[in-house]
Amino acid sequence: MLPKSLQKLIDELSKLPGIGPKTAQRLSVYLLRSPHSRIKPLGDALLNLKDGLSFCEICWHVTETTPCSICGDPSRDKSKLCVVEDVLDVVAIEKTYQFKGVYHVLHGVLSPIDGVSADQLKLAELFKRIETNPEIKEIILATNPSLEGEATALYINKYLEGKSVKISRIARGLPMGSDLEYADIATLGKALTNRTDY
Amino acid sequence: MLPKSLQKLIDELSKLPGIGPKTAQRLSVYLLRSPHSRIKPLGDALLNLKDGLSFCEICWHVTETTPCSICGDPSRDKSKLCVVEDVLDVVAIEKTYQFKGVYHVLHGVLSPIDGVSADQLKLAELFKRIETNPEIKEIILATNPSLEGEATALYINKYLEGKSVKISRIARGLPMGSDLEYADIATLGKALTNRTDY
Repeated sequence: MLPKSLQKLIDELSKLPGIGPKTAQRLSVYLLRSPHSRIKPLGDALLNLKDGLSFCEICWHVTETTPCSICGDPSRDKSKLCVVEDVLDVVAIEKTYQFKGVYHVLHGVLSPIDGVSADQLKLAELFKRIETNPEIKEIILATNPSLEGEATALYINKYLEGKSVKISRIARGLPMGSDLEYADIATLGKALTNRTDY
Repeated sequence: MLPKSLQKLIDELSKLPGIGPKTAQRLSVYLLRSPHSRIKPLGDALLNLKDGLSFCEICWHVTETTPCSICGDPSRDKSKLCVVEDVLDVVAIEKTYQFKGVYHVLHGVLSPIDGVSADQLKLAELFKRIETNPEIKEIILATNPSLEGEATALYINKYLEGKSVKISRIARGLPMGSDLEYADIATLGKALTNRTDY
């Protein structure tokens, strides 16, 4: 019922996570109505996405240079290593301007239900990095406060136990601007347990 | 913080309707992790989208041939003309196998609030088509049962009043499988007013 080139785009778009066949249809017809000058940059951006891109071999953040701009920055504090799940978590933390250390991107979390085990993450690389770099003094575990994120943090903590490196976990508590009344019990419990001196 | 090619893709994706900056980020990182063989078909599909595609000059459906496969099909009943808002509405109606007539795609609805007036739609083309094709006996107004869709149907009905052509509107009533108790008053009202003989 639809021309082949349109159907092809719908099929390709609906393969993306979170985009169902209806959304793919709507996006495709929207693009069809757009001028070619609007579509071309998107097509080019896709085809050129990986050009010159790689993962930093120190921290596994996505980068155009080796080492990446964070690992290669002499002003960053190499003694603090922040372990995150994802490339976008680095971006999120960088936006706070509260952290001047370096990162280690795991590229996932331990999740037996999704078939993700330790060897699919950059965990061996993390442990080797800590062992071979005695200047690393503190590991900040900044995986998500989700079931899998907590399990991964626990796993790393267990592995590094007894090593001469301080291990910390990002604070879990009430988000800024929130309301005690509407907080879930797990968050409120953590907020009480992890209360800070005033 | 992110490499240029990745940021470019995020920017381009977030220009699409219904895709915000966070979704664009997530999709881009997903694509970054995918092999090139996964990304290339999507990029190609985008760049080739308009190749050989045009709008049928009779019904304004998207097509690779002139006239389109529906208008050019001698088995279709040319006396019944179904007026729809959108290319995807043709697809939706075709999937029911309940309609063997031909279509007219308006490419939008009258919507003063969005600045869409009659001359931006294929309305003049519709009226001319009806005037110059005396074989058209019935116009089925199949615009959406929304405020704008109803207004557009009313507009077409007003214009064609007094012309020797039957005008009908798709039935509005309770959707199949629904529950009377949870129906909104507008729908239930329509369902009662438009009740059919049993």
